[in-house]
Amino acid sequence: MPRRDATEIAQQFNQQIKAEVDAGLLAGRERPRLVGFLANDDAAAVMYARWTGKACEANGITFELRRVERVALEAAVIDANVDPSVHGIIVYYPVFGGQVDDYLRDVISIEKDVEGLNHRYRYALYHNIRTLGEVDGQFGAKKCVLPCTPLACLKILEATGAYDKAQPVGKQLASRTAVVFNRSEVVGRPLAAMLANDGAVVYSIDITGMLRYTAGSVQGTIKVEETSMAQDDALRAADIVVSGVPSKSFCIKASAVKPGAICVNFSQFQNFEKEVEDKCTLVPAIGKVTIAMLERNLLRLQANFSPPKRRAPGGVAFVCATVAAVVAIAAWRAYR
Amino acid sequence: MPRRDATEIAQQFNQQIKAEVDAGLLAGRERPRLVGFLANDDAAAVMYARWTGKACEANGITFELRRVERVALEAAVIDANVDPSVHGIIVYYPVFGGQVDDYLRDVISIEKDVEGLNHRYRYALYHNIRTLGEVDGQFGAKKCVLPCTPLACLKILEATGAYDKAQPVGKQLASRTAVVFNRSEVVGRPLAAMLANDGAVVYSIDITGMLRYTAGSVQGTIKVEETSMAQDDALRAADIVVSGVPSKSFCIKASAVKPGAICVNFSQFQNFEKEVEDKCTLVPAIGKVTIAMLERNLLRLQANFSPPKRRAPGGVAFVCATVAAVVAIAAWRAYR
Repeated sequence: MPRRDATEIAQQFNQQIKAEVDAGLLAGRERPRLVGFLANDDAAAVMYARWTGKACEANGITFELRRVERVALEAAVIDANVDPSVHGIIVYYPVFGGQVDDYLRDVISIEKDVEGLNHRYRYALYHNIRTLGEVDGQFGAKKCVLPCTPLACLKILEATGAYDKAQPVGKQLASRTAVVFNRSEVVGRPLAAMLANDGAVVYSIDITGMLRYTAGSVQGTIKVEETSMAQDDALRAADIVVSGVPSKSFCIKASAVKPGAICVNFSQFQNFEKEVEDKCTLVPAIGKVTIAMLERNLLRLQANFSPPKRRAPGGVAFVCATVAAVVAIAAWRAYR
Repeated sequence: MPRRDATEIAQQFNQQIKAEVDAGLLAGRERPRLVGFLANDDAAAVMYARWTGKACEANGITFELRRVERVALEAAVIDANVDPSVHGIIVYYPVFGGQVDDYLRDVISIEKDVEGLNHRYRYALYHNIRTLGEVDGQFGAKKCVLPCTPLACLKILEATGAYDKAQPVGKQLASRTAVVFNRSEVVGRPLAAMLANDGAVVYSIDITGMLRYTAGSVQGTIKVEETSMAQDDALRAADIVVSGVPSKSFCIKASAVKPGAICVNFSQFQNFEKEVEDKCTLVPAIGKVTIAMLERNLLRLQANFSPPKRRAPGGVAFVCATVAAVVAIAAWRAYR
């Protein structure tokens, strides 16, 4: 089985993003602007900010990194919330750590939350709600954004053939069993819910134990259950194994996984033994796809909340024709 | 200096609460109903639920404890959110622990969040915003609720003379220095902000270090700063020491505190050495006042979101007269 590099998967999304940015500019939109706030010296956060900047630049997105003291961060975020020239905000955590960081996550306006980690977006995700209006009635048919890292996992699973595209949406993982090591609010729990939304039986594992996520009997609901299934048995049955354990010593052995499984690692440490790639599809890192999802979320937020101000000559028909032409050219380039 | 028992302070509030419940019933309100959700076997949570029930019963409030599996809790809370016979909801944590519990806290509707721990209430508190409409425009002049435990600390500080009532509101702690050991989102951080709102210089301490909270130069803002002040120096200067360190071994020595200081403990462990009461006012536990604040929040939520359905004979004037009479009788009884 091949080792799959996320770069190649990210590339397709980057072409689409670049085409959409170009089309937006032609249609009279402002160039999308993402503001990142760095309030720590954490090496991983600094690196992530640098990667975000490079990826945005390549796709024609303005990225502005603002370094602030942690005690000044909340006020700086609120300023960016109300600044119409800013279309998206990302904070590089940790800031204070723990509950204060959770609080800060919700200070970011849902109009600018490119990470999709605001409570309203997570609530929508856990209830398979697709538009913001269904959450609080305020925002009508505007589509929700999904959190970047779990969304990246899904896109990688799609690209590596985990989804049965012959089935209807919501059933495309119906024959699949998945194991997700990590149940954080940032990745593991939303991912388990998203996989269950798509029909999979998901075993979600963290240090406190295992829970089972499946689609509920009422459409759009998720069933979460305690389970007495042994972790090894779940792993052996899994067609999909996603792991994000932040530990050097955590290692999934090749002997423990099912041949042909798709294995995705999103920890900064490699959670899969090297030999896993001899019998499985292994995606060892997903960062580039995550950043592509961040950019896609930015474009969705801009489309939701910052409509174009001026019209290109010729009005709507011209804009539509231009967008179609740019997308067609990009598609042709990608196909070449 | 005396040791002050919170029971005696709680008693005054309980008289007011009972009077307000009675007046509400006469005015055609439903009897206030608080629903508690218990999804664990945690001894402290079970005890807190029992105390809540007893205190509510004594004041004429209906308290209903619902035991649910942790995986069923979110759906149960959502049911209670939309049930018009429920005026307030409290969840006894921990449920899953960590970020999932933070998520659950925000699932409780702001219309029923008696603990005042919803993000919108905390955001209002940290920005000294008094009405919900100022947060999101949706709820007009409805007053925010404040989180119970920090509010209880404030009421205890008022009852023990920390507030200079000759000064205007917002300046009544202007000459005071406070130290708060604990910076959780549930108690310590909101408390530091509330004391700073009232004019105090507050040193907020947790295991990661110390921050300094003061009123900002613009009215209604709080200034939070890093500080190089030594913990011992802050403690020696403090007129108010509040401690909630969840550790048996953490102990504030009598020699470390300023004579005449007001010392309040909200940890389940006694954070103050016994000798502290020889030179300071010591309030060793605050639970009864916390529960009184929970009941007050319930009444505020009911007043905000569940207006009376039927009118007493004679209309508004009669209702006002009745309320006034009941409050007057209660006040007279309290005075006797």
